[in-house]
Amino acid sequence: MQRYFLADKIEFQVGDTFVLPAEDANFHHFARVLRAKVGSKAEFVSAGHLAVAEVTRIDAQTMDLAVIDVPNIPNVELPFRVTVVVSPLKNDRSDWFVQKATELGVNQIIFTKMTRTVADWTKQQAKKQSRLEKIVQGAAEQAHRLAIPTVRFATWQAVQSLPKTAGLVAWEESARAGEQAQLVQTTKSLQAGDELVLVFGPEGGLTDAEIADLQAADFKAAGLGPRILRAETAPLYALSAVSVLAELGE
Amino acid sequence: MQRYFLADKIEFQVGDTFVLPAEDANFHHFARVLRAKVGSKAEFVSAGHLAVAEVTRIDAQTMDLAVIDVPNIPNVELPFRVTVVVSPLKNDRSDWFVQKATELGVNQIIFTKMTRTVADWTKQQAKKQSRLEKIVQGAAEQAHRLAIPTVRFATWQAVQSLPKTAGLVAWEESARAGEQAQLVQTTKSLQAGDELVLVFGPEGGLTDAEIADLQAADFKAAGLGPRILRAETAPLYALSAVSVLAELGE
Repeated sequence: MQRYFLADKIEFQVGDTFVLPAEDANFHHFARVLRAKVGSKAEFVSAGHLAVAEVTRIDAQTMDLAVIDVPNIPNVELPFRVTVVVSPLKNDRSDWFVQKATELGVNQIIFTKMTRTVADWTKQQAKKQSRLEKIVQGAAEQAHRLAIPTVRFATWQAVQSLPKTAGLVAWEESARAGEQAQLVQTTKSLQAGDELVLVFGPEGGLTDAEIADLQAADFKAAGLGPRILRAETAPLYALSAVSVLAELGE
Repeated sequence: MQRYFLADKIEFQVGDTFVLPAEDANFHHFARVLRAKVGSKAEFVSAGHLAVAEVTRIDAQTMDLAVIDVPNIPNVELPFRVTVVVSPLKNDRSDWFVQKATELGVNQIIFTKMTRTVADWTKQQAKKQSRLEKIVQGAAEQAHRLAIPTVRFATWQAVQSLPKTAGLVAWEESARAGEQAQLVQTTKSLQAGDELVLVFGPEGGLTDAEIADLQAADFKAAGLGPRILRAETAPLYALSAVSVLAELGE
């Protein structure tokens, strides 16, 4: 069943109704793309809660929906919030990165211009953000998530002062020196509601000055195994690792 | 430094020389693309061993190289062999899948037509294989690996009789039923030299009959966490998990 995320906060109760106006992107998709009519059903998520609703009336301006089920579903979100900070990437690599990161459970994706960042998005930042947000929303629906990750841009200064319970920076030199425990230790130390911030460099790597900035801001260097991972692969490895350590049992 | 994989087995010793003929793809890349001349250096891998070599003579037919260093490097390969069996995927998704799987340490990638496979490669199998092998080789060089993963096509029957120490199949139903221990348990039970085979379904999922086939062939169903992962994301999650469990410490 198609899943839609509602911007409004609705407390779903079976039998209640709600309205979807034509200016809502969900209306467009459900009514025009899927050609919903009276009796059509879809899943709706509001503030992390899921309902199955059925169209009871539809015209060109609005759609009325009746909540027919509020299923008791298992939690599919990571037990703590994970923010990933990355450099803009060239070509379509940022597109598929945000898709995969969303599937893997990320809560917030922050793009930051770093010293060795090559891709220049300054002239198209709004367009990029809108495009990436659409990809993230589609991926969240497909992955049956209950929250849509946010995508935003921030300065290097802002990254250093992000609120966090723990922060890690993936650092190649650290991996080369044999560091292999930090990611596991940090993840296992986190509890429900904590905030983990993970920072990854661009293709050319972070500079020594950037590493020093992050360490001064209480980020710890972490190795991600013995192989060199590309800029877009490293965060996907780290997100998978967090899921394995926090969500899989033994 | 550029890294090349040699098809011939050479026992590298400092001071020894070897020859690269013009028909070798590495000759083309090093001589034509990178414009190597006398004194140019590159890394060469033969049978899992690494040497740094320097060009001592070059003409249009051959290149002579002298081994100037046989560095003592840490192992960057997973402690056991991992084979991933996947369905052909549409568009360029197989391309980037093989690139990422190579970065994450896979040893063998097998493409198999499954019941719900949509992409049809029958008319272009040789071309596809050659293209995917080139991507894998480039990714292995970039990831500083010491072995190039093999890419091949196999029938569903052949998959069932692949030699293995342990086999897992990623099964959505199993994840939905709360199975979350199999991947961790199996990975932790493996030892150096063992062979792990991981099977993943196409976009539409494996059929009940395919799951039954695999279970009869001693594959165990494994959940990959609570979120629904796309066909190309699930194997990357599993490979990252194997690395975290086998290569990262606590």
